[in-house]
Amino acid sequence: MTENLVLAPARMTTADIFNSAVASSAISAAWELGALDELAANEKLDVTEFATRNDLDQQATEALFHALASVRIVERSGGAVLRDVNFADVYKAKGFFHWLSRGCAELFANTSSVLPNGNRVGEYYRRDSAAIAVACRDINKNFFDPVFSAVMAPLEFTKVADLGCGSAERLIKVLGWHPTATGLGIDIAGGALRLAQESVDAAGLSYRVSLIQDDATAPRPHPEFTDVDLLTCFLMGHDMWPRDECVASLRKLRAAFPNVKRLLLGDTARTTSLPDTDIPVFTLGFEVAHRMMGVYLPTLEEWSGVFAEGGWRLIRQHLVPLPADSVIFELEPADSAA
Amino acid sequence: MTENLVLAPARMTTADIFNSAVASSAISAAWELGALDELAANEKLDVTEFATRNDLDQQATEALFHALASVRIVERSGGAVLRDVNFADVYKAKGFFHWLSRGCAELFANTSSVLPNGNRVGEYYRRDSAAIAVACRDINKNFFDPVFSAVMAPLEFTKVADLGCGSAERLIKVLGWHPTATGLGIDIAGGALRLAQESVDAAGLSYRVSLIQDDATAPRPHPEFTDVDLLTCFLMGHDMWPRDECVASLRKLRAAFPNVKRLLLGDTARTTSLPDTDIPVFTLGFEVAHRMMGVYLPTLEEWSGVFAEGGWRLIRQHLVPLPADSVIFELEPADSAA
Repeated sequence: MTENLVLAPARMTTADIFNSAVASSAISAAWELGALDELAANEKLDVTEFATRNDLDQQATEALFHALASVRIVERSGGAVLRDVNFADVYKAKGFFHWLSRGCAELFANTSSVLPNGNRVGEYYRRDSAAIAVACRDINKNFFDPVFSAVMAPLEFTKVADLGCGSAERLIKVLGWHPTATGLGIDIAGGALRLAQESVDAAGLSYRVSLIQDDATAPRPHPEFTDVDLLTCFLMGHDMWPRDECVASLRKLRAAFPNVKRLLLGDTARTTSLPDTDIPVFTLGFEVAHRMMGVYLPTLEEWSGVFAEGGWRLIRQHLVPLPADSVIFELEPADSAA
Repeated sequence: MTENLVLAPARMTTADIFNSAVASSAISAAWELGALDELAANEKLDVTEFATRNDLDQQATEALFHALASVRIVERSGGAVLRDVNFADVYKAKGFFHWLSRGCAELFANTSSVLPNGNRVGEYYRRDSAAIAVACRDINKNFFDPVFSAVMAPLEFTKVADLGCGSAERLIKVLGWHPTATGLGIDIAGGALRLAQESVDAAGLSYRVSLIQDDATAPRPHPEFTDVDLLTCFLMGHDMWPRDECVASLRKLRAAFPNVKRLLLGDTARTTSLPDTDIPVFTLGFEVAHRMMGVYLPTLEEWSGVFAEGGWRLIRQHLVPLPADSVIFELEPADSAA
């Protein structure tokens, strides 16, 4: 509440809000069509040449760059397109836009039918899980990996299991850093595991990696688990919540991997103190989407308060600068020698 | 091109663009769920009470207002929501957001598959025509009607035909202004005509209105057309283009209505001189969508240059302030006594 009854002027106008919504779809599409990567690599792009080479409609391609230019991601000059002031930042954040405008498009478009309690039964919303996987891969690469690799560097281990391994990108990366280690990928999704097997084969790592289909938040005991000494779990920890279920999951993980020495749990928590008018990229979409989907997001404080009861000791907490309230928790079994 | 190699800073950041995209969906949904109308009528809204009364999920409803607050449409204060500086402008423009984030959501989400030439066959995109109709009704009411009613005021006529009458809102309004006139609604869509008949009946105007299903851009001669002396045609004129087809349509209309004295043609033209970074609300979405759909949008200049060849004389051109380059052309048959 302000004592001054005259409201401060808004930075963004109605037109800015509208044009940004158009631009958000354009960012996602321009990335998919290869335009953002070309502009990241080259100083300029010729629109006609780009459309012709990729067999795209000329007018619609021109429109795509018009949308990007409206919020200064690119500048149009004659038939060419150059990077504008927002390019570098948007390019790094393109996964967030892809998550929103491609992966969650249907969820957000149907907001008015997702909110009524009467509709919130069965599969009452749809998202594009393939697009979300592509988006998360880029988000991981640009935001989580720099911190993850620093956390990994001093760790010694012989066998890593990645919980919710998806397409096995993380496993492959970790085994690249640690040439003598072996790996295990666990995921509930058969489609993801087929992709993972292809990626592992392509990386020439078949002899060092096993893949197991199971619920990564509560895996059944498995002979392959016995010699795992490092667990990694990224961007899915919130699926263990609410609290009681998270405690149970953490205990099950502790029991399922008897010789584990470290659990690296990276996730984005629900923010609690951001002013409504100064929310960094991704946070708003992430939190609104999960509330729409009825998925509980724990805060950093709630996370910190659950580990002891779940059988783990928090050694260190590595902050990831963006998205807001993202962190990699470095945990060890509570019953291990400290 | 600027001589200064240092780019001016952008008004909007990456986070602003992202949050605006989330907010755009929220505007559309908040309107559908009645929240915007309540905030327009009352100083504040209690979130819990609003969710309970409308049987909406509490958390998701809170998230909806969080999204609106992020771009200063509302301000959240405790459990209440108040209008913020962007409210009045966004409320007036809500039809544009509904058009974009509800009506055209699927088109924009699928941009990357709409652009490749190989995909541009058959029904290669989908829009929600019901949502677009609702959006256009609000756009008409807030932006075109004030100009339309001023243009209509001095006109004398006995029978008006509305081309592309949709749900007959415009016809009903015109007959309210002119209590002795009769009306004719023409539309290709059977669904729209059923809605129109219900609206006409509900307005007690059944004895003054006939509805005919036909292509409004090229209607076949009909006995009901003979005594029509006023034609109205709104937000569909661009469907007559490209130019050759527009000339043919205008001639067919002239021939089909032998006693017409005026044609009021209201439409939004393609802009030609707006700077990329200063585009007023709606224009970008409207132009990008039509380029994606492969629909030609004429400019104001192109419109002005087609009437004589189509058999009409432009008497006056009434500018509609928003959307940009919107106009109501006031035309009379070229062969009438000037």
